[in-house]
Amino acid sequence: MSDKGRIALDAMGGDQGPAVVVPGADLALAQHPDSTFILFGDQAKIEPLLAAHPRLKSDAKLVHTDVVVRMEDKPSQALRNGRWKSSMWLAIDAVKKGEADVAVSAGNTGALMAMAKFNLTTMPGIERPAIAAAWPTLKGQCIVLDLGASIGADSAHLVDLAAMGGAMARVVLDLERPTVGLLNIGVEEAKGLEEVREAGRILREGHWPQIEYAGFVEGDDIGRGTVDVVVTEGFAGNIALKAAEGTARQLGQILKREMSRTLATRLGYLLARRAFRALSDEMDPRKSNGGVFLGLNGIVIKSHGGTDAEGFACAVDLGYDMVRYDLLAKIGQTLAGHESEAAQ
Amino acid sequence: MSDKGRIALDAMGGDQGPAVVVPGADLALAQHPDSTFILFGDQAKIEPLLAAHPRLKSDAKLVHTDVVVRMEDKPSQALRNGRWKSSMWLAIDAVKKGEADVAVSAGNTGALMAMAKFNLTTMPGIERPAIAAAWPTLKGQCIVLDLGASIGADSAHLVDLAAMGGAMARVVLDLERPTVGLLNIGVEEAKGLEEVREAGRILREGHWPQIEYAGFVEGDDIGRGTVDVVVTEGFAGNIALKAAEGTARQLGQILKREMSRTLATRLGYLLARRAFRALSDEMDPRKSNGGVFLGLNGIVIKSHGGTDAEGFACAVDLGYDMVRYDLLAKIGQTLAGHESEAAQ
Repeated sequence: MSDKGRIALDAMGGDQGPAVVVPGADLALAQHPDSTFILFGDQAKIEPLLAAHPRLKSDAKLVHTDVVVRMEDKPSQALRNGRWKSSMWLAIDAVKKGEADVAVSAGNTGALMAMAKFNLTTMPGIERPAIAAAWPTLKGQCIVLDLGASIGADSAHLVDLAAMGGAMARVVLDLERPTVGLLNIGVEEAKGLEEVREAGRILREGHWPQIEYAGFVEGDDIGRGTVDVVVTEGFAGNIALKAAEGTARQLGQILKREMSRTLATRLGYLLARRAFRALSDEMDPRKSNGGVFLGLNGIVIKSHGGTDAEGFACAVDLGYDMVRYDLLAKIGQTLAGHESEAAQ
Repeated sequence: MSDKGRIALDAMGGDQGPAVVVPGADLALAQHPDSTFILFGDQAKIEPLLAAHPRLKSDAKLVHTDVVVRMEDKPSQALRNGRWKSSMWLAIDAVKKGEADVAVSAGNTGALMAMAKFNLTTMPGIERPAIAAAWPTLKGQCIVLDLGASIGADSAHLVDLAAMGGAMARVVLDLERPTVGLLNIGVEEAKGLEEVREAGRILREGHWPQIEYAGFVEGDDIGRGTVDVVVTEGFAGNIALKAAEGTARQLGQILKREMSRTLATRLGYLLARRAFRALSDEMDPRKSNGGVFLGLNGIVIKSHGGTDAEGFACAVDLGYDMVRYDLLAKIGQTLAGHESEAAQ
């Protein structure tokens, strides 16, 4: 790793492509002036945007490609048509070649994961990569994984998720020894899936210097902030994330509609707008934007495809932190701490 | 089925037992004066409460038992200690014997399901029962199932869930032909679990006069009201429900905290309190209280254990509607409509 954060960007990814990526990177650079950027994508589209952001322009290298992975491409299509040459592939490949420390893309999640896995391969001891993200809680944030990289998980994969999520929590939440919970239905030991129970046993009985296993947690413990890391397999994790996002949006819409109904409610809204701002600030999906691909020999961040420049900047910031505080080494440590114990 | 709704109550179930069940039943009776009640439980505790609710008292029969299933009992323990004699068992048994049309309990979910399954047995053609509930959406309500009756589901079980949930939507939402979506991660046909894809194929290609299959939906489609019925297996369903409930509670707490910060926000709150009331009314978990056990030869409703009298009354109302509009016959119709087609 270099001292600076060297960030490779898939400039064509996301609903808006470079129109969000370029100003987003510019915001991220303002936050971390020691970053450098390599942008991959269509020169004709990116250059005028760079011209409008001179700070970024002076700090960024632009590598042209006109091959773009589309949002609707299946992972196999994306690999077939986009390998070696798409903006998404080239951003990942910059990490592989050691030219960048992290790749960030707002493109097609399935394609990004397939390419990252193909090119970077999984870390020693990790069979399947995962997607993790920060989730706002009443106490601050927690890390939730897997958010949909793979469906189903045996106990060994759940334990890997616990170790990787723990390492990410040490970086993102700046904790010495984060608490880790296994998502289950019901908190009694006897309930739930066989593999979740078995993973619970391994985590409870093993020696884990870097994480503290806190037992089973339920869906409502995530937002409550009961633990620092919530571990589940990708199907349930993705559904939990989207159900929660949907609920937050639903409440926001109802509140907005009701607030505009009468003169009194409109006036009340004006008087209390500081409170509404604080709420939407705290729950702002842009602020927790950025899914980290864990378990690969390199760091890749997936930004939400529909985010704006501010949201994209948060995903880049997250990547910067992962590099700066050495996520990969911390994952290795957490796994090795356990393995050295297991080998005794 | 009798003309009236004859409702059997486990008067000892829930965190508060008869202190919530009795006033809750009284509220439900006011709503549906043609209901009659049988209360099972500790006479010494229930009688003074009935004395305070003369309307209910004149309409209810009290059957004494001092055996109670505890909230912490495992299903096997509950069956061992509570079969034939606990208030929970006796309420279910009243349905089995034809003395009541529906049983309602706020007790231990696992025990209630185990007893209901043991005593009522599953409907012909249904292998595993499910728990379904109404979920508030931006468009009104939808039915979500399975919320945790069993973990994992093959394609046949998912199709059963679609049929049973469809029947419940016809009753609760008063729809001719509700739309049904399969919960998945990603809306493309190719994504997701093999069994979800296969269930999608069966639903898409089959002839279903009573339900309209609408394809895959994602976690955020639930609250959006994209479909009338959302089908998933019990692990993901339970986690989605609790993640959504947790998010709603989290937002409510943040808003409350922020609203009390300054004089302006407090005044704003007062002016806009009508809007806040409308919001909490719309999202009130008491109003969607009541999980319906589907797939059994009899109707059993699980009320939330921590609800109040108003919430318990909603669970009883739900049971009343299930009886009044003949849920069991509608499930049979939906399944038979498909089977007669399949047999051709």
